[in-house]
Amino acid sequence: MRAAVMYGAGDVRIEDRPDPKIVDPTDAVVRTLAACVCGSDLWPYASMPATDTGRPMGHEFLVVEETGADVTGLTAGDLVVAPFTYSDNTCDYCVKGLHISCRNGGRYGFDGVDGGQGEAVRVPYAAGTVVKLPVAADSALLPSLLALSDVMTTGHHGAVTAGVGRGDAVLVVGDGAVGLCAVIAAKRLGAERIVLAGRHEARTTLGREFGATDVVAERGEESIVRIREMTGGVDKVIEAVGTRQALDTALGAVLDGGTISRLGVPQYEQGPIGPAAFMRNITMTGGASPARAYIPELLADVLDGSITPGHVFDKTFTLDRTPDAYRAMADRQVLKALIRP
Amino acid sequence: MRAAVMYGAGDVRIEDRPDPKIVDPTDAVVRTLAACVCGSDLWPYASMPATDTGRPMGHEFLVVEETGADVTGLTAGDLVVAPFTYSDNTCDYCVKGLHISCRNGGRYGFDGVDGGQGEAVRVPYAAGTVVKLPVAADSALLPSLLALSDVMTTGHHGAVTAGVGRGDAVLVVGDGAVGLCAVIAAKRLGAERIVLAGRHEARTTLGREFGATDVVAERGEESIVRIREMTGGVDKVIEAVGTRQALDTALGAVLDGGTISRLGVPQYEQGPIGPAAFMRNITMTGGASPARAYIPELLADVLDGSITPGHVFDKTFTLDRTPDAYRAMADRQVLKALIRP
Repeated sequence: MRAAVMYGAGDVRIEDRPDPKIVDPTDAVVRTLAACVCGSDLWPYASMPATDTGRPMGHEFLVVEETGADVTGLTAGDLVVAPFTYSDNTCDYCVKGLHISCRNGGRYGFDGVDGGQGEAVRVPYAAGTVVKLPVAADSALLPSLLALSDVMTTGHHGAVTAGVGRGDAVLVVGDGAVGLCAVIAAKRLGAERIVLAGRHEARTTLGREFGATDVVAERGEESIVRIREMTGGVDKVIEAVGTRQALDTALGAVLDGGTISRLGVPQYEQGPIGPAAFMRNITMTGGASPARAYIPELLADVLDGSITPGHVFDKTFTLDRTPDAYRAMADRQVLKALIRP
Repeated sequence: MRAAVMYGAGDVRIEDRPDPKIVDPTDAVVRTLAACVCGSDLWPYASMPATDTGRPMGHEFLVVEETGADVTGLTAGDLVVAPFTYSDNTCDYCVKGLHISCRNGGRYGFDGVDGGQGEAVRVPYAAGTVVKLPVAADSALLPSLLALSDVMTTGHHGAVTAGVGRGDAVLVVGDGAVGLCAVIAAKRLGAERIVLAGRHEARTTLGREFGATDVVAERGEESIVRIREMTGGVDKVIEAVGTRQALDTALGAVLDGGTISRLGVPQYEQGPIGPAAFMRNITMTGGASPARAYIPELLADVLDGSITPGHVFDKTFTLDRTPDAYRAMADRQVLKALIRP
C-alpha cells in the first residue's frame, strides 16, 4: 500500500509499504477513506532530526472496515471514525473516560502501527477504538465526522476542562483548527462571550461563524492589553497553540482564580508555575484529549447539523500529494488539509 | 511597641517600633493576643539578603480590637482572628471568595503595615478582614482559632481545590502544619483514604490523629514507588511543601487525569508542565488560600470541637523569644510556634 512517511524536518515521502495484516485478534485492518494533516504533525515537520527508517504519519482518519476481523460490533463495510489514539475501552482509565491514557493504548505511526495517512491501517483494539458512523461513504457530513477524530474532540476537551458553562466569557488563544473547534465547543456549552485571539483573517472569520463574539489580532503584550480592555480579564482560557508565547498570553489575560486549559502540545519542558502563578491561584488543566470518550456525544450534534467542524478543512489533497499538504499547512496557506487516498 | 523584624537570613530581632495609629478611616488598630511563626516565614529566614531597614514579620494573629475605630461591626474589646492578608471584602475578587486577590488587599509587614509578630497591628480594611470570635480571651480554643488565620484555612483550600469528596483517596505531601491541616480538611470533606508523605515521626503521628490512614516516610523516587504500591496511584494530591522535590513526588504519585493542588509557596520559578504532564492530563491547581472566605465555615467546626487544628502548636514563646522560635522551627525541633506578646 502507499502511505506517507516522515524522514525528518520538511521531508515527507509517499512510499510503498507492506499491506497491514491482523497481528492480534483484537486488531482490525481497515481501508482509509479520508485522513488529514494535524497541526501537531507540523511540529516534527519543523524539527524532526533526519532518520533512515522514517515514521508513518497521520492519526486522524475515517475508514471502512475491510477484513471482517473477529472484533465485536464491527462488520466488513462499516464506516467508522478512528480517534487519534487507540484504546481498549475497558481498562480503568478508559472506564473513567480517559482513553488517551489507556493501559493498552498507543499512537498511530509508532510501535509497528501504521499511520492514518495511507491506504490502510491496522487498528489495534479496534472494538474499543473506532466508532461506527450511521452514514454512507459519500455523505456530505464526512469532513465534520473526520474532525471528530481529533480537532473537534480536542476543542471540546478544552471547553470541558476549562469548565465552560452557560453565560461564561471564554478566551480561545489560537486560530488553528483546534482553536476554531474550541470556539464551537465553548458556544455549544453555553458561553456567551467568546474572544478569539488570532491574526489570520480567513481563520478568524471562520471563528466568528463558529461563534466567536470578538477577535483580537494583536500579539504578545499588546494582545493582553487589548483582551483586558475588552473584557476586564476572563475566568476561562483555552490555549490551543502550545508555544510559550500563547501560554504567556493566556496567563496575562486570565483573572486571578481562573483556569487555563492547554490543548496545544507544549513546545517547552518547563513553564511559569512559580510564586506569581501560585499567588494568583491559576489552575492549569487540559492536556491530550480522550477523543474516544467524546465522540458519541459530539457525533449526535454533527449528524443533526448543529455543529459543522468540517468547515476547518479548506483544501483536499490526494494521498500522493500529502507532502504538498504539509508544506501548505506549514506555510499557513491551508488551515487544515483533508487527504483522500 | 515591641515587634519582630527580620534583617536577613537567620537574623530576626525584637525591636521598639512606633505604636500603630489609624491612617485611613477603614483601619483598626488592634492589640495582639497571640501570633505565630509560619512555615513560609522560614523561606526568608533561610535566604533573605541582609537589609538595613528590616521587614516586620508575622501574618497570623488573634487580636483584641483596641481603638474602637469607626469600622462597621467591630467594638473595642472584640476578640477577632485576622486572616493572613487583609482585604476589603467588597471588590469583585472578594465577592467571588478570592480574598487573597483583593483589589485593595495586601500583606502584613509590607507597605507600612505592621507584622503580626508584635504587640499591636494597624489592620487596613478591618471590617472586611477580621472575623469576630464568640469566645473569651482565655478560651482553651484559642490555638485552634489562631490556626484559622492561615494553616487550617490553607489546608482546607488544598482539599477544596483538589476536589476532595466523599470516599476519595488523597495524598498529602508534607508533614508541616499546613500538610497536617490538609489532612484534617480532607477527612472533613469525606476522604476515605488519606496517605501522608512525611518522615518526621512526631508529625506523622499527629497526622494519624488528624485522620491520615497511611504514612509514607520514604523520600523522592522511593516514596513514589511506595505510594503506588499502596494505592495504585491517587487522583487527588495536596502538595504542602513548595519544593521541586515535593512537586516531583506529587507528579509521580498522581494518576493520569488527576489533580495536584499546591499549597506550599513554590521555591522555583519554572516547573515541569511540558509534554509529559500534558499527555497525562495533570491538572495543577491550588495557590495562596483566600483564608477570609473559609473562616466562617471552619470556625463553626472549631467551636463545636469537630476539628482541632490548634494541636499543630507544640511550643509557646514570649514575643521577646521570637528569634528562638524561628530557630527552633528552622531546625525542625518545633512544628509550629505560638507567640504570646
